[in-house]
Amino acid sequence: MSLDQVLETIETDLPAAMDRLMQLLRYPSISTDPAYASACTEAAQWLARDLQSLGADAALRPTPGHPMVVGHIPGDGPHVVFYGHYDVQPVDPLDLWDRDPFDPEVQDTPKGRVIRGRGASDDKGQLMTFIEACRAWKAVHGTLPGRISFFFEGEEESGSPSLVPFMKENADELRADVALICDTGMFGDDTPTIVTRLRGLLGEEVVLKAADKDLHSGMYGGPSQNPVRVLARIIAALHDDAGRVTVPGFYDGVPDLPPEIAAQWAALGFDATQFLGDVGLSVPAGEADKTALEQIWSRPTCEVNGITGGYTGAGFKTVLPAEARAKISFRLVGKQDPHAIRDSFRTMVRNMLPDDVQVEFHPHGASPASQMETDHPLFEAARHALSDEWPNPAAYVGCGGSIPIAGYFKDILDTDAMLIGFGKDDDQIHSPNEKYDVESFRKGIRSWARILDQLSKM
Amino acid sequence: MSLDQVLETIETDLPAAMDRLMQLLRYPSISTDPAYASACTEAAQWLARDLQSLGADAALRPTPGHPMVVGHIPGDGPHVVFYGHYDVQPVDPLDLWDRDPFDPEVQDTPKGRVIRGRGASDDKGQLMTFIEACRAWKAVHGTLPGRISFFFEGEEESGSPSLVPFMKENADELRADVALICDTGMFGDDTPTIVTRLRGLLGEEVVLKAADKDLHSGMYGGPSQNPVRVLARIIAALHDDAGRVTVPGFYDGVPDLPPEIAAQWAALGFDATQFLGDVGLSVPAGEADKTALEQIWSRPTCEVNGITGGYTGAGFKTVLPAEARAKISFRLVGKQDPHAIRDSFRTMVRNMLPDDVQVEFHPHGASPASQMETDHPLFEAARHALSDEWPNPAAYVGCGGSIPIAGYFKDILDTDAMLIGFGKDDDQIHSPNEKYDVESFRKGIRSWARILDQLSKM
Repeated sequence: MSLDQVLETIETDLPAAMDRLMQLLRYPSISTDPAYASACTEAAQWLARDLQSLGADAALRPTPGHPMVVGHIPGDGPHVVFYGHYDVQPVDPLDLWDRDPFDPEVQDTPKGRVIRGRGASDDKGQLMTFIEACRAWKAVHGTLPGRISFFFEGEEESGSPSLVPFMKENADELRADVALICDTGMFGDDTPTIVTRLRGLLGEEVVLKAADKDLHSGMYGGPSQNPVRVLARIIAALHDDAGRVTVPGFYDGVPDLPPEIAAQWAALGFDATQFLGDVGLSVPAGEADKTALEQIWSRPTCEVNGITGGYTGAGFKTVLPAEARAKISFRLVGKQDPHAIRDSFRTMVRNMLPDDVQVEFHPHGASPASQMETDHPLFEAARHALSDEWPNPAAYVGCGGSIPIAGYFKDILDTDAMLIGFGKDDDQIHSPNEKYDVESFRKGIRSWARILDQLSKM
Repeated sequence: MSLDQVLETIETDLPAAMDRLMQLLRYPSISTDPAYASACTEAAQWLARDLQSLGADAALRPTPGHPMVVGHIPGDGPHVVFYGHYDVQPVDPLDLWDRDPFDPEVQDTPKGRVIRGRGASDDKGQLMTFIEACRAWKAVHGTLPGRISFFFEGEEESGSPSLVPFMKENADELRADVALICDTGMFGDDTPTIVTRLRGLLGEEVVLKAADKDLHSGMYGGPSQNPVRVLARIIAALHDDAGRVTVPGFYDGVPDLPPEIAAQWAALGFDATQFLGDVGLSVPAGEADKTALEQIWSRPTCEVNGITGGYTGAGFKTVLPAEARAKISFRLVGKQDPHAIRDSFRTMVRNMLPDDVQVEFHPHGASPASQMETDHPLFEAARHALSDEWPNPAAYVGCGGSIPIAGYFKDILDTDAMLIGFGKDDDQIHSPNEKYDVESFRKGIRSWARILDQLSKM
């Protein structure tokens, strides 16, 4: 009965919930760019106030970077800690956005109503689904069905430099029976999804320098080193012809996919052609002997996320560049050791440098892959709750992205993490015109309400 | 006697001549960037007015791009046409300039007084040396020692798209006994120089596109093509391990260096270690079996002048880029055919593209190398004139840069070109903090006065 009342409250309160999300989306909380530091703090302050309105003792907790937001609502029953991040990705190329990324609006599209704006899906819209479910539950019951802790980070999109120290320093406060994380997507429109595998992430910015200034390519071209050419050789050497990464030792700790998992995934009916077709591609690239889904959920990769050097403006400038830079990242699986791979990568790069070319490395995050234990009874309870809300039963899947927090909960706090999210493949997270379906938001809130209901019975 | 008067007038008038150059340097006439189109026109107008003050019928002559400036001063004796360009290179990276590139000033440095500013050497300072010599000559004699035509271009730094059509349409007007071009440097501080070999230049911007938008490297990395990686493979494949360019047919038409030229060049005492050391390098790169000087003056090259793709801002963004671009240029020698090489390069690139990666090519200039005939008596006369002004006798040398105008004078107008310039290796043309030595300017004006004197005797 009381669950029905909560679900009804969610429906009635939906316009107000959307307004609250819009307020949060208006903060340009781009964590990687120091120019937006105050916007990050303001987004954190907004969240703390919102949690306080639920009765939480929420506060900003300083770090060397952007603040954490932590708040607790006391209650009887199991202790769950909910994690999300209030920071967002940069918005460039800005000219590919149809509107100001930080002036969100609800738009009607052929596929339904969407909330358009940076962070709508990743992760502001997702984290608000849980807060709104708690708000509705509390409105009906006056309390929450357990002790709920909220833990929001502001550096997830920039390598989470403060996260591990903060979790270690505040381990007793954050430790819980289970961690809930809402930063993942659904497998298809109708299949709610619990992610049990996440890839790790290792980021390195490589800066090559040769001459002490940009040179005239006619006067110096030939006998002078060109760092762009050296960088291109290094990048080209990072993969072999079969699409495998060549960094020595890279595949140490990469497990074979167990046949039963392979069978489960095959049963999901993933359509690689459609997956690629949605973004203008047609033929799976990468490791020649792996399916697209296997690659994304269970194989490590190496990608160049950005490169720059020399003259990149309009027209032509016959310069011999003094410097070239690339941002290179590795997605990791199984027991791959990010620190060992970083060392091996750096050695490989150094070994490829000719005379007169120097290298600098700027590290950007190093988190191992993680794989969830699904033994805790809340996993099965959540699977039932999700299956009640959506057309298809819930699935346990992998995720190509990197959400190191799940591994940290396990390693630092010995707390199992459940990754449940309502994002869609076409949400364009990290891209221009990011959106979150209004239905993702609405049914996301309802899904969490059903999970709270399961919690109340434990 | 009268030459001495002219030289004396040059000394007396030097402060005023410097002021005039400063006026011209203040126009930010960056031809490659459309934002500076009006500055280009204003620089052209300033030049036309200055030529008019010398008695020339100077006017701006429209082209589809920036205007030409053409003016004639009638006179008895040989007809010479003097060429220069009033446009300049872009100024980025702006933060490496010590001052506003278009707010020039005279500075005292440990190596002497310099005029600091974009275009000070390339080519505004150089072209003004000839105008000032004419001004002084006319002040003394009331006339000039021949018929003098001035021909100034505003697109030299952006591939000269209007030059050939304009020269063809105005061939009768521009044809002369000899062309004088002041856009080159000296071989060392004390050795005046006539350039007899120029490399050609072929520019191509390569744009690779894969997905229809930037993707999340976690969600799509692996089975999705990354155009930065494809571009890196292409760039890496453009040279073999011995430093030779691998574009099929690239070396067709590249002559061996005649032993007598090699001997002349060896006698110049070029110090590769010092040449490279001046810009922070130490070991000659490029073709393993060629000296640095041979490479610059007599060998073709391929360089990447700029590259960009994906996220290049501060911090890190785990994007899988939709697009990657490189500006690639080839310096050509001998009879290398720029059009054949462009075709071969494009075919090579297309053959390296995997499925789902498309290419666009944007051409930026295609000019063959040129080699001067030194038979015209003015060559020897100029050599004597220059040797009178400077400590060392004048040398015939090569030039690694590309000044296609010299070839056009020969091919289109059947006019031999003499390339005489007073730039120095450390002028930082095309780089931040470009400068022109006050002594280069002063002795450059004096050198032209001596050449005009030789002309008066023909």
